[in-house]
Amino acid sequence: MIKPRTPPGVMELLPREQIAFQRMLDTIRRNYERFGFLPVETPVFELSETLLTKSGGETERQVYFVQSTGALANAAEAGATAGLPELALRFDLTVPLARYVAEHEHDLTFPFRRYQIQRVYRGERAQRGRFREFYQCDIDVIGKDALSIRFDAEVLAVIHAVFSDLGIGAFTVQLNNRKLMRGFFEGLGVADGDQQMAVLREVDKLDKRGADYVRETLTGAGFGLDADTVQKILDFVAVRSSGHADALARLDALGSGSEVFNQGIAELREVLALVQALGVPETDYSLNLSIARGLDYYTGTVYETQLDDYPQIGSICSGGRYENLASQYSKSKLPGVGISIGLSRLFWQLRDAGLISGSESSSVQALVALMDDAGLADSLDIGRRLRAAGINTEVQMESRKLAKQFQYASRAGIRFVVLAGEDENARGVVTVKDLFREQQFEVPRDDLASSLNVELEQARVLAGR
Amino acid sequence: MIKPRTPPGVMELLPREQIAFQRMLDTIRRNYERFGFLPVETPVFELSETLLTKSGGETERQVYFVQSTGALANAAEAGATAGLPELALRFDLTVPLARYVAEHEHDLTFPFRRYQIQRVYRGERAQRGRFREFYQCDIDVIGKDALSIRFDAEVLAVIHAVFSDLGIGAFTVQLNNRKLMRGFFEGLGVADGDQQMAVLREVDKLDKRGADYVRETLTGAGFGLDADTVQKILDFVAVRSSGHADALARLDALGSGSEVFNQGIAELREVLALVQALGVPETDYSLNLSIARGLDYYTGTVYETQLDDYPQIGSICSGGRYENLASQYSKSKLPGVGISIGLSRLFWQLRDAGLISGSESSSVQALVALMDDAGLADSLDIGRRLRAAGINTEVQMESRKLAKQFQYASRAGIRFVVLAGEDENARGVVTVKDLFREQQFEVPRDDLASSLNVELEQARVLAGR
Repeated sequence: MIKPRTPPGVMELLPREQIAFQRMLDTIRRNYERFGFLPVETPVFELSETLLTKSGGETERQVYFVQSTGALANAAEAGATAGLPELALRFDLTVPLARYVAEHEHDLTFPFRRYQIQRVYRGERAQRGRFREFYQCDIDVIGKDALSIRFDAEVLAVIHAVFSDLGIGAFTVQLNNRKLMRGFFEGLGVADGDQQMAVLREVDKLDKRGADYVRETLTGAGFGLDADTVQKILDFVAVRSSGHADALARLDALGSGSEVFNQGIAELREVLALVQALGVPETDYSLNLSIARGLDYYTGTVYETQLDDYPQIGSICSGGRYENLASQYSKSKLPGVGISIGLSRLFWQLRDAGLISGSESSSVQALVALMDDAGLADSLDIGRRLRAAGINTEVQMESRKLAKQFQYASRAGIRFVVLAGEDENARGVVTVKDLFREQQFEVPRDDLASSLNVELEQARVLAGR
Repeated sequence: MIKPRTPPGVMELLPREQIAFQRMLDTIRRNYERFGFLPVETPVFELSETLLTKSGGETERQVYFVQSTGALANAAEAGATAGLPELALRFDLTVPLARYVAEHEHDLTFPFRRYQIQRVYRGERAQRGRFREFYQCDIDVIGKDALSIRFDAEVLAVIHAVFSDLGIGAFTVQLNNRKLMRGFFEGLGVADGDQQMAVLREVDKLDKRGADYVRETLTGAGFGLDADTVQKILDFVAVRSSGHADALARLDALGSGSEVFNQGIAELREVLALVQALGVPETDYSLNLSIARGLDYYTGTVYETQLDDYPQIGSICSGGRYENLASQYSKSKLPGVGISIGLSRLFWQLRDAGLISGSESSSVQALVALMDDAGLADSLDIGRRLRAAGINTEVQMESRKLAKQFQYASRAGIRFVVLAGEDENARGVVTVKDLFREQQFEVPRDDLASSLNVELEQARVLAGR
């Protein structure tokens, strides 16, 4: 006998948790679709030569390769001289998107707005909260040759819609612009991109190590910046806005600089104006000039999103604007803007923080109880009617003690238990026990479905859905 | 530059097709949930020792193994002496279900009703209509120690609900029982399971090769059955019922036999009675005594489903009753009944048969046109209101010729184009062009969302959803 176990580093959920997870996936998808994004799914594996064009170092070492039994035997034969396997599991959704857009370029309409919600794979060292298989929920808008900055504002509105709808607490979408950062650093004489990144990495340690440590490092031998420059950097990255007018004022206060610096400010102004026009409340977005993301990839707008009450969770949704999606597959210039939500990790963190209890209601809304076998046909008929009215219904197929059936419904998170005993049948009614409201009522059998739907609709309205 | 291409043997869809595919997935899921099945997802890879306990032969040769870069390097070092890699991709959803139920047995409530909709992987030789990655959409009910035959009827009702709702034409769920078959063959002296299977494989050639060929083979040296026995077999497997009463009459006509034979008939009777009580129309199910499925796995009820007008597609949903789900992982006896829909293949076949045109409506329901940039804030506001009312809406972020915007909406399958020019704004109205009805109308801006929702609701009712 083999001990049944999942491989290390994966997140497998019990049904109640899976329902909560599925609700989050559905909410994200619903909001992506509401903004007019189209679904794309790509195969779990890509040709290795496709997947590994750009990556290297850390990423490459984390790739999972795939071989059929036959290919494996051949490779074993060839031993150390065998090349890389033909197939590898995707490690993000961006490389597959680039391949997809380049491969299907002539069948797509640009700007191309796609969402993609699939799992990705990384051979991470196993540790708490790190997963080898996890969901990413991405949207991107891809232009051909050019893409209006206006989409950067729309993407922020999508982030806002998703996290409002998820209902996991107050959050702030934090906004910065890579052009502004680049212009700022160049103005200080830190012109090299790698050096800018190195400086930012040190600046990132502000919270943990304190300002003195960061000042010492940046003025030290490794960086050789003068104290005045370091102070300017610390002042710049400390900029946070509170409210729309304050964001504009803080951009004003930066003055003007090089062309790229001014362009960054102009882009931020336009994004802020449109975000307001899109109806995003000013409490929910903020300038944060410390946000950089990957310097080598993002070239304009960058976003991070934090839960206001759980800053330790870090960014729960990140992304930004890039110059060219698919330079390794296509001669076309394909600029884009996009975001990614790492839902497996977010779910794990929310659960860890006690924000997901696993006691949410089941996807099953009603249980038709069965008191004795003679009532089975009746139960099946009641179940059929409830389902026809759109209510997810389980029918007890075997009679057992009523107390057991209530206990089962209660533990499973099923809201309604429907009873149709001899007495009820004689009077053409059924008894409904509402386990959420802890109420019991009788209703004519013909009105059962509509009356449960009224209750369910009320619950949906109360939950803001 | 690398040529962008998908690996051979996978099905990748353009957005319009992906929308059609996603609708089918959603329909299947909705019906599974409506019958009270709970969601389960398992990791794409399992430990090889878990996955390969039972399989062998054909299945084992089709497995895809997974190795991280590090594991791959170690294996190359070890060459031909390396053992099997630690991880392998699932080749169905049944083995992962068995592992899941055994692993989480003490956290699950039995009967355990789960649905699982995920992709599976098989290293098939590449050929038309065969996929190396494809969706399976499964439900199973798992009992502990025992499971009532009543669930076999419920599962048939689920099949019926799914295919009614998919709206891909008339279909028949065909029903048989392995106990009846076993009893029948044993009564003829064909007692060995493997021999029964071999006989059935020959009988399967009736359509292609004709009765004479089959008679010759079965009376020939390989089988050595006498002509009378062969005729009885041919008569038995030819049994097809039309209508409920006819199904019962045909069971009557079989008379009685061994205990297992009689048990098979009793089970079929009970399933038929409950299927009727579940409200499944008698035109949509039928006895078909030629259906066997895998002899070594299924032990009672077996199902296949065919599209009445496309029998050449074969069974589009198959399954049945089994004795013990997880004998290799658990000492508990876990009998179950379940079905699987191979949706990727079905989608491919429906498209091939012209039943899916790719011209279905988009997931985007409305496009807010933009005639000049001054109107952008207005467009964004209209878009926001439509989305708040639950309408999937794309806002044109850059102005261009109106004809281009109509053309775009038309090609994309977007039903409504909303126009708010200066004239309309002055009068507090918007113009709506309904591309499906080829009508144009004006509506007060505040009534736009509700009036589009009325139209969309009508379309949903007409489509029977």
